[in-house]
Amino acid sequence: MTLPEKIVEIIKNESNFLILTHSTPDGDAFGSAISLKIFLETLGKEATVYTEHPIPSQYQFLPGIDKVKDIKNLSTDAFNVIVLVDCNNPSRVSYDKEIVEIVKKFEGKKIIIDHHIEDGKSVEFTPYRWIEPDVAATGLMIHKLIKTMNGKINHQIATNLYTAIIVDTGNFQFDNTTEEVFLVASELVRAGAKPSFIYQNAFESWSENRFRLFQKMLNSVEIISSVAIACINKKLFDETATTEPDTERFVEFLRILKNVTVSALLREVEQGFIKVSLRSKGDCDVSKIAREFGGGGHKNAAGYRTSLNMEEAKQKLIEKLKEFLIL
Amino acid sequence: MTLPEKIVEIIKNESNFLILTHSTPDGDAFGSAISLKIFLETLGKEATVYTEHPIPSQYQFLPGIDKVKDIKNLSTDAFNVIVLVDCNNPSRVSYDKEIVEIVKKFEGKKIIIDHHIEDGKSVEFTPYRWIEPDVAATGLMIHKLIKTMNGKINHQIATNLYTAIIVDTGNFQFDNTTEEVFLVASELVRAGAKPSFIYQNAFESWSENRFRLFQKMLNSVEIISSVAIACINKKLFDETATTEPDTERFVEFLRILKNVTVSALLREVEQGFIKVSLRSKGDCDVSKIAREFGGGGHKNAAGYRTSLNMEEAKQKLIEKLKEFLIL
Repeated sequence: MTLPEKIVEIIKNESNFLILTHSTPDGDAFGSAISLKIFLETLGKEATVYTEHPIPSQYQFLPGIDKVKDIKNLSTDAFNVIVLVDCNNPSRVSYDKEIVEIVKKFEGKKIIIDHHIEDGKSVEFTPYRWIEPDVAATGLMIHKLIKTMNGKINHQIATNLYTAIIVDTGNFQFDNTTEEVFLVASELVRAGAKPSFIYQNAFESWSENRFRLFQKMLNSVEIISSVAIACINKKLFDETATTEPDTERFVEFLRILKNVTVSALLREVEQGFIKVSLRSKGDCDVSKIAREFGGGGHKNAAGYRTSLNMEEAKQKLIEKLKEFLIL
Repeated sequence: MTLPEKIVEIIKNESNFLILTHSTPDGDAFGSAISLKIFLETLGKEATVYTEHPIPSQYQFLPGIDKVKDIKNLSTDAFNVIVLVDCNNPSRVSYDKEIVEIVKKFEGKKIIIDHHIEDGKSVEFTPYRWIEPDVAATGLMIHKLIKTMNGKINHQIATNLYTAIIVDTGNFQFDNTTEEVFLVASELVRAGAKPSFIYQNAFESWSENRFRLFQKMLNSVEIISSVAIACINKKLFDETATTEPDTERFVEFLRILKNVTVSALLREVEQGFIKVSLRSKGDCDVSKIAREFGGGGHKNAAGYRTSLNMEEAKQKLIEKLKEFLIL
């Protein structure tokens, strides 16, 4: 990890920072953005984070989250610098094209600090890019930045950075969990991060309704050879008074089955509209299947939408899985 | 953590070690026992681990597990020393009273290395006790022992100790996850432990039968105020062709509910015999409840056995939870 000198220089010289991240922000996005803001403030700078609102309930415990402003009200007038964190493409900042335009038109200095693979848009946006696709979380880069600039990891920063790390490593379970990740985690705990408290807030904050939906989802699971398929129809959502965001991480749970290579979750998000999420282990590329249905994604995590009914959608998916020799 | 001098001395001076652990061994039991065996062998000693068989499928990936012998065939004749690891009461070594008698009658030197709270039986058993109830996993004590004796953490030991740690910290999610735990994890990764590989083997290797048992367990969950109680009777085990080891981590899952402070899992492990596992969040001390029923454990993870039937056992537990103002 090498922090570009020029970025350090801009941080040292400028006074008023606008911090932005990707839409549908997760723990790494919030944790990195807020930590950076707190650090900049300790340097006597002004810094403001704008993200999409409402803030998801599982991140409302983050120290400093109450200062995060709604991106709907964004104006860049007062700022010298925009810092994009956990995001390297200004178009990803919001689904709202007007907001994206405001960001693109900004004429001050622009910095990118991110760990996602570049899609080419970062070069157009700014020459001041720090992008490390091999690093597990942007939070680790913010940690490095603070250390490099001789900053102090106070307990607010520690809690935010720890959250960033656990969300992007699946709480130390993904392939990206390195020796370095654990060293930083150790330092963050020393600085005041509370692992069980943070884990409980970020991961163990299901409502009883969500739990009941999960029960019903599990009861619907069909295991066909190395594929596990679960369905949630409108009726199940209604019976449990839940909505689509309550299904977050459900499809990942099915990875727990040793012999399951692909898991699929079909959700009737509105009448006559099925949203399909696919997950796979190892080399099995589910993005190919998603693309066949007009969707997209990554090798191990992809999805699509269909106007078929639940039973038809399931049958079509099974046919396609057979065609791709996954079944 | 202070390793008693006398234990180091016995290890240095003796030649043939019998390593035992608690019945229904888990990752900390296996990982600690096997690591100790490998370490003793690097010192030129002989060492043998005996546990209950069959070895649960999720631990069959552990390097050295193939050398673990079935405690049914135990004879102590050839050994100079018994080391009890992750266990401080010889009665917990097996459900088979004859085996317990063999252990109790052993006349050589006896060592205890454990992180569970003592129940008084350890003092009767041996003067050579190293018991650290504040340490997250016995694996951390074995790590300390190896380091104190200037041993090398090779990659077999690293994988075993990493497994011990993640099983007893719930993969770094429980209250016992300290700065020190992360430092050791970092060292173990440097020595060759592979976090995602170990996680998948230890935690994501459920059989379909185990998954079906989990479904049925979830369907049995009653949420009473801040307590979630689940029951698995003999019939459910039979219907799904599963056994007690298949329930590992089921009780932890119920912590996912935001408003649940205590989770309990009652299992009819044999006809007329209920095993109760309790888990709690934060300051709620379930070891007090377990002790009321003759069991033991830690603040956030405890258990006991009862000869009451399922319904009576549940009612007694609920009464006790009320008495302790948890309900």
